[in-house]
Amino acid sequence: MKALLFDGKILSEVKCPIPKPAVNEVLIKTILAGICNTDLEIIKGYMKFRGIPGHEFVGKVVESPDPNFMGKQVVGEINLACGKCDFCLQGLGMHCPQRSVLGIQDKDGVFAEYLTLPIQNVHVVPAEIDKLKTVFVEPLAAACEIMEQIHILPDYRVLVIGDGKLAQLIARVLNLYTDNLLIVGKHPGKLELLNQKNIPAVHLNDFSQEKSKYHVVVEATGNWDGWRMAMEMVRPRGFIVLKSTYAGDQSFNPAPLVINEVTVIGSRCGPFKKAFYHLQKETVDPLDLITKVLPFSKWQDAFELAKKPDTLKVILEFK
Amino acid sequence: MKALLFDGKILSEVKCPIPKPAVNEVLIKTILAGICNTDLEIIKGYMKFRGIPGHEFVGKVVESPDPNFMGKQVVGEINLACGKCDFCLQGLGMHCPQRSVLGIQDKDGVFAEYLTLPIQNVHVVPAEIDKLKTVFVEPLAAACEIMEQIHILPDYRVLVIGDGKLAQLIARVLNLYTDNLLIVGKHPGKLELLNQKNIPAVHLNDFSQEKSKYHVVVEATGNWDGWRMAMEMVRPRGFIVLKSTYAGDQSFNPAPLVINEVTVIGSRCGPFKKAFYHLQKETVDPLDLITKVLPFSKWQDAFELAKKPDTLKVILEFK
Repeated sequence: MKALLFDGKILSEVKCPIPKPAVNEVLIKTILAGICNTDLEIIKGYMKFRGIPGHEFVGKVVESPDPNFMGKQVVGEINLACGKCDFCLQGLGMHCPQRSVLGIQDKDGVFAEYLTLPIQNVHVVPAEIDKLKTVFVEPLAAACEIMEQIHILPDYRVLVIGDGKLAQLIARVLNLYTDNLLIVGKHPGKLELLNQKNIPAVHLNDFSQEKSKYHVVVEATGNWDGWRMAMEMVRPRGFIVLKSTYAGDQSFNPAPLVINEVTVIGSRCGPFKKAFYHLQKETVDPLDLITKVLPFSKWQDAFELAKKPDTLKVILEFK
Repeated sequence: MKALLFDGKILSEVKCPIPKPAVNEVLIKTILAGICNTDLEIIKGYMKFRGIPGHEFVGKVVESPDPNFMGKQVVGEINLACGKCDFCLQGLGMHCPQRSVLGIQDKDGVFAEYLTLPIQNVHVVPAEIDKLKTVFVEPLAAACEIMEQIHILPDYRVLVIGDGKLAQLIARVLNLYTDNLLIVGKHPGKLELLNQKNIPAVHLNDFSQEKSKYHVVVEATGNWDGWRMAMEMVRPRGFIVLKSTYAGDQSFNPAPLVINEVTVIGSRCGPFKKAFYHLQKETVDPLDLITKVLPFSKWQDAFELAKKPDTLKVILEFK
């Protein structure tokens, strides 16, 4: 099969054998694969990953230990857990210390014609959901995770910092829970997409710096300026939801968290079922977030496009 | 009246007029006043406070707009709120942006023969509570605040870092909620007090460093080593409760909070009613935390004693 392989230095197209599913794994033929910021970080060396990257996909099951999955269109949860430890037994496989992670840690990913996944990681896509939308199930689930962690009251003032792919999905989900939502970003085109959905979004230059105002601040920029802004904008007894990680350390003092009794919540993957719900009911529509769909053969163009600041989702299409 | 005055440089005994209560304030004759770590910080310059420090007390009401308070023994909440802003109207006066704070910010405190407080800040002490115990109502309430913020399940593994006054009260309260509590500290004498109450407490040198183990880690040391230990010891999806602040900034990266979905909760003052409850029912007994009670005239000795690392609570007694 054709695949993209990252050897620690460069990403290149290779021919390699179709992977052999382990017991309890399905073999999936990739249909679409989304390029995520994590993928761009991985090919810069993040997580020291070696192998086939990629973790956002929709595919078709071609081998399965359970015949009910055969031929079905599926998406997959990315954490491959041991199933036996303390975390797994509490349904927290995503935090299993022995886990591997699809296309991120010790498990080949989806930038290939075929991939394998444990059957318990696989979700059959409801037939009525547009195939292109299903590529967003994983990041949309991550956006929905916020609502699993905080009870957002309708009159809460909520600020999302960032206007990228994940911030866009977060904004669309949060908009269902509060009338007092504001997004602040740096990219006029991306902010305009939100305004088109009647979600208030302003450019950083036009953001009036009324501090300590927001009950909930979601930080989804991936840079330290976002963290500092979150610390300034959250009100006493408020919540900062951290959706992004930062390169390197910076100077910090948690004293304001104590004095103002602020809660900082780290937030990562989320419930696929909620993502399916929003796509099925069309309460969240991510199609305008697709910058381009390119055939797998054009993967180099796709990665170049994905790196540009005004790009949102770039999708690779397999034959 | 006699009082201790901090002029920004030194603390000294002065004679000054008895304060005149404002409308809706009571005048209280001080009976006992506890010396808190915050007081020691204040006389080093913390909060740039000028005036009479001190905020832990029990006293007797000698003037009151409500005759029901006259002659009663009372303790007081330390945040003097405006009563009109968004926070105050939600019962969060402790976060009122216009607040002053007894003996800490823009309001003379309790190291004096008399003090004034708004009547809504004053709580009549139930008669059956030992007078010496009531000095602990404010810090005990702060310890109880943790339970207002986290639902601690009985099988949670809970680690308290620190063995000082506040850590001691936190340990005694948490011990009522979990069978899996451990305190780690540096002072054998203080750890022994906990062991005497059948609360497991170990010296840092004997602490086996099994990382990512604890559902809840309470950081109550006031130094950066405590913060770093908390980050190491908390398990994925766990909680770090920050009870202390640190001097200066240090290098930091919040990425582990995101990857492990950890929640950091800043925690400050708490519910006086809960503190009364524990003192009345004797579910928490703080008397062994008193290192010494000294007459007000010996205030210099009292402050010297309070600064020593093995000291717990030092109390000034007024005539």
